[in-house]
Amino acid sequence: MILGSFAEGHWHTPVNGRDVLDAVTGDVIAQISSEGLNFEAMMHYARNVGGPALRKMTFHQRALMIKELAIKLNEYKAEFYELSYASGCTKADTWIDVDGGFGTLFTYSSKARIELPDEPFYTEGNTEQLSRNGTFLGQHVMVPLRGVAVHINAFNFPVWGMLEKLAPTLIAGVPLIVKPASGTAYLTERVVRRMTESGILPDGAVQLVCGSVGDMFDHLTCQDSVAFTGSATTGMMLSQHPAVTKNAVRFISEQDSLNSSILGPDATPEAPEFDLFVKEVVNEMTTKAGQKCTAIRRAIVPKDLVEPVSEALKARLADVKIGNPRLKDVRMGALANMGQRREVYDRINEMAEENEILCGGTGAFDLVDADYAKGAFAAPTVMYCDKPFEKLKAHNIEAFGPVSTIMPYDTVDDAITLANMGEGSLVASLFTHDNNVARDVVMGAGAYHGRLAIINRDSAEESTGHGSPMPHLKHGGPGRAGGGEEMGGIRGVMHYMQRVAVQGSPDIITAVTNRWTKGSSEAVDTVHPFRKNFDEVELGTTLHTKARTVSMEDIEHFANYTGDTFYAHMDEEAAAANPFFGRRVAHGYLLLSFAAGLFVDPAPGPVLANYGLNDLQFMQPVYPGDTIKVRLVCKSKKGRPGQIYGEVRWDVTITNQDDDVCANYELLTLNARAE
Amino acid sequence: MILGSFAEGHWHTPVNGRDVLDAVTGDVIAQISSEGLNFEAMMHYARNVGGPALRKMTFHQRALMIKELAIKLNEYKAEFYELSYASGCTKADTWIDVDGGFGTLFTYSSKARIELPDEPFYTEGNTEQLSRNGTFLGQHVMVPLRGVAVHINAFNFPVWGMLEKLAPTLIAGVPLIVKPASGTAYLTERVVRRMTESGILPDGAVQLVCGSVGDMFDHLTCQDSVAFTGSATTGMMLSQHPAVTKNAVRFISEQDSLNSSILGPDATPEAPEFDLFVKEVVNEMTTKAGQKCTAIRRAIVPKDLVEPVSEALKARLADVKIGNPRLKDVRMGALANMGQRREVYDRINEMAEENEILCGGTGAFDLVDADYAKGAFAAPTVMYCDKPFEKLKAHNIEAFGPVSTIMPYDTVDDAITLANMGEGSLVASLFTHDNNVARDVVMGAGAYHGRLAIINRDSAEESTGHGSPMPHLKHGGPGRAGGGEEMGGIRGVMHYMQRVAVQGSPDIITAVTNRWTKGSSEAVDTVHPFRKNFDEVELGTTLHTKARTVSMEDIEHFANYTGDTFYAHMDEEAAAANPFFGRRVAHGYLLLSFAAGLFVDPAPGPVLANYGLNDLQFMQPVYPGDTIKVRLVCKSKKGRPGQIYGEVRWDVTITNQDDDVCANYELLTLNARAE
Repeated sequence: MILGSFAEGHWHTPVNGRDVLDAVTGDVIAQISSEGLNFEAMMHYARNVGGPALRKMTFHQRALMIKELAIKLNEYKAEFYELSYASGCTKADTWIDVDGGFGTLFTYSSKARIELPDEPFYTEGNTEQLSRNGTFLGQHVMVPLRGVAVHINAFNFPVWGMLEKLAPTLIAGVPLIVKPASGTAYLTERVVRRMTESGILPDGAVQLVCGSVGDMFDHLTCQDSVAFTGSATTGMMLSQHPAVTKNAVRFISEQDSLNSSILGPDATPEAPEFDLFVKEVVNEMTTKAGQKCTAIRRAIVPKDLVEPVSEALKARLADVKIGNPRLKDVRMGALANMGQRREVYDRINEMAEENEILCGGTGAFDLVDADYAKGAFAAPTVMYCDKPFEKLKAHNIEAFGPVSTIMPYDTVDDAITLANMGEGSLVASLFTHDNNVARDVVMGAGAYHGRLAIINRDSAEESTGHGSPMPHLKHGGPGRAGGGEEMGGIRGVMHYMQRVAVQGSPDIITAVTNRWTKGSSEAVDTVHPFRKNFDEVELGTTLHTKARTVSMEDIEHFANYTGDTFYAHMDEEAAAANPFFGRRVAHGYLLLSFAAGLFVDPAPGPVLANYGLNDLQFMQPVYPGDTIKVRLVCKSKKGRPGQIYGEVRWDVTITNQDDDVCANYELLTLNARAE
Repeated sequence: MILGSFAEGHWHTPVNGRDVLDAVTGDVIAQISSEGLNFEAMMHYARNVGGPALRKMTFHQRALMIKELAIKLNEYKAEFYELSYASGCTKADTWIDVDGGFGTLFTYSSKARIELPDEPFYTEGNTEQLSRNGTFLGQHVMVPLRGVAVHINAFNFPVWGMLEKLAPTLIAGVPLIVKPASGTAYLTERVVRRMTESGILPDGAVQLVCGSVGDMFDHLTCQDSVAFTGSATTGMMLSQHPAVTKNAVRFISEQDSLNSSILGPDATPEAPEFDLFVKEVVNEMTTKAGQKCTAIRRAIVPKDLVEPVSEALKARLADVKIGNPRLKDVRMGALANMGQRREVYDRINEMAEENEILCGGTGAFDLVDADYAKGAFAAPTVMYCDKPFEKLKAHNIEAFGPVSTIMPYDTVDDAITLANMGEGSLVASLFTHDNNVARDVVMGAGAYHGRLAIINRDSAEESTGHGSPMPHLKHGGPGRAGGGEEMGGIRGVMHYMQRVAVQGSPDIITAVTNRWTKGSSEAVDTVHPFRKNFDEVELGTTLHTKARTVSMEDIEHFANYTGDTFYAHMDEEAAAANPFFGRRVAHGYLLLSFAAGLFVDPAPGPVLANYGLNDLQFMQPVYPGDTIKVRLVCKSKKGRPGQIYGEVRWDVTITNQDDDVCANYELLTLNARAE
């Protein structure tokens, strides 16, 4: 198998390359090299072919595209699983990588369609009034970067690692070049082959480099970005590249870190949280043979629970079957390659200088249907650091394999300090059923961790666990973890977009954002707005209703009819004592109901339903004898692809006879589309 | 005047230092040096004294603190204005710096109290449901970084430059060390003296370094941050410091850039936008003698308007009085010092190699009550670049003074390309009354600019102009502008906080965020929740109401009473044809009204008013004969300092006889506080 690169719309196969070995058998399974690629031309192709094609699409179109992609890739799952065994993965390990990757595409597709508009840009946050009379406004708008996203990935997740970066990038409308780590690139390459065969993505949207990135970094511009996952050393080197700093290229890094898990002081062996903790530490040590950036490296345990925790861990680990990952009952496979094993052993030896090895270590051991001399197997190794405030190796040395160190603590504050001594990590977890401990740990340790998973009896059954980054939440931590943020729902999409503060008159802001902004021109015509279908209604389409006087009889009638006999409506003396009213006032719900009576057009027509209401504020009381009228303006429209109706948002203002605003709200209707 | 530094709670005065000269007279006005400061100790002091004190306060307390600070500093305004003349500033120039700085404190104080909770942390975005049954949730929470913010500022805004960074930092709860540029540090030093005398800020919250930052960068940790404003060369050097990259220190840079302004194709000399444009270019050239990072360096003009624009600019500039900035009718003062003038002249000479000088240049000229040989005065210089797609100097060379280059364009697309050829800038402006041009420029140029100011006849009177960063909007641009973002309202506060993704059960999320989360435990007792005052109501306080059956008579009565005779309520046959209903349904407003009738407690009590409603969704129709009931849960509370009431948010759910949810919304009440 000679691994290809996908460049400028074509597969490029090198003449020869470096050998890539099977993690379990040590056999050569592929050759890899990026020799002969023109990196500058690839970047041009992304910017000039991929970018324009993606930017012509809306968020929703791109979201549907990646959903279609996920469905298509899913057809080849068996093939990907088969290849994945060569990296030492069990079936369960591959599930995280392959199904986890596809799941990320689905989640992003769905979130984009729910949370983003069907536009190629995003209007972020509120309109800011920058002047007294509101003729000069400010609005943040996000537009796609006009460059290429370079993704440099780690060996441990050849599929998920690619897709978790790909999903937000493509949804943003930005083309990408992905460079997988050589050791497991054969799996990434196969997935990209299936992608390109599918014809689902536009030309230039995705390119692949198998092998080194050559001089790619020299050609980075201010519109490009780099997302790196891997070692701190490489990350630091890349981030200091002159083209990166000179052009302020967005650079995010997600590096391995010394993640921790705290067993709460309440989690004695009798509490369900004790078992949950032990299970999770074992899980994180053995899944992917501990080769997860998020794995638990430090188990922080109440001093008097060190003994039972150690025993429970040893007992559970003794039951873990290690060997040929193709076998059903094998729970843990091999490290990615012999180099990784040497690396892990070196780190274990370094750590053992001040920590006690409770089980495991750096020697050969029995395997199920596998050969320790040929496959990169390592034994799960638990260490004990008796003085974690003085002996610092376990806080600073990462053995990227099935290795974890137990540390004792006295008080919750001490546990927090120990967790923070990792100087920035991707994730910490806490096993507690005590809300106060949870609160203290979030406030005390939050600044040092990208994610804090708090797990207990209430959530354990459904918990996704310590180690799993979820597409909804950010992945990445401060300091040693690289300081980057990936995913995090729509935040991850915004990383590939530029925030621009647009200033202008209300009409300008309306035109730019495609949302009617307060203060903009009204469009009044003779047809009632509710007689217009979704496609006919325009931003600014306005109705001014007739007026209606609210009488004392109306109020009393409404009170008795609905049962809302609140004193402010019913009792002149009590109402007078209320700080806001001074005398009897109409019910807010009466106003809403009368307003509807004024603006609703009763006969069957394109408005199918009022399905909601938003941001209602009562600004001024309505007193008996006051006369109200309503202005209704079309504020925004949201079409749902394939549906026979769309959502229309209306700005509704109720004013009194003095033109004071009594209430303002957003009304949501579903309107039929044009036939 | 020997400038002091404020370190570890004390003023430190160096024995001697480098001379600082008056921009206008060339006299020595101060000496500056940071010799003798212990930078590591200062950082320790910030982290261990300032940080803990600030973190004990809530956002609102910190916001009130900076408001108090602004009021206090305002008392010394005359003194600051007096000092500012020495930097070559006119009174109008100083207004931008001093009053602009105080205004930023006021705006931040107000935005923080409106948009942030009265807590020391911020709950960001929606709760994410991570599991089918909702027992495992995710929530992003922002907590203050536990380090020190290092602010390195430019010479051109000694007051605003400090305060625009200080405001969001202190509101975040993070201590800072400010290092002003030496040339105008005397003004910053005086402001910090007044700050420290006031006793308003806690110890360690603000420290000052006058002079170089010594070895400060060597001591940066993963909890620290750097915000730099200045030249690209210095910015690049600092961003590559090993401690910055190794610890992933947040580094934002705001560098001078080649900002542009586009005159729209519709803005012929007859259109109001033509004059507005000419006025703005002149303004940006002469204010602060063009020493603004945001000044217009490139004036992009329709080809056939080059002539009238050039003439109008020359005419207006000829009228600008230049000289002693203390004089009332002097519009433009001096550059910061002779070094700056030499620098500006070098750049003009370089640019003149391919651009024509229309007015100004590098020679001596007449001044009002000032001496060209002693003061750093430079003449407003307009150049013309006839082939801006080929001659690139004007896109790449920044003369940081009263210098601007006119460039012709054919089409709006060309104008966009020219604007983008600055490779990233802080701001571009556009003078047009054509909404389509505005939309095209935002979509086409947005990715290259931090801010786009679109100015026309509708907004001109209230516009804050091309050059003014507003605290509500982000300041900073991609690429050459440094890639940083400052201010931008609450975004700027979040820059000094760590985003942590918290995962856990609903009860855990409620405990951590201090907001009741759906799925959390309910607290039911015998007292009606509306009989509890603001301080008695607790998160999760719940009311389950009695049930009420909605009859056909109710619906008909409501329709006739309110006037809302929409067919879905009134006409069985028409309702049957509606895709959502199938038959006649109750009005949404009837449900809201009946719900209020069920949950309201009528007698006078602590609930003073229902002042709003939010996120109402009708999920399931209610048919005649259905029986509804309501659950009301206290979701969050927001006390307003000094007010006799606070806001309570309630989660309201209306269900039918089958426990299907018919409607869900957030109800807002104002509740009296405990006496």
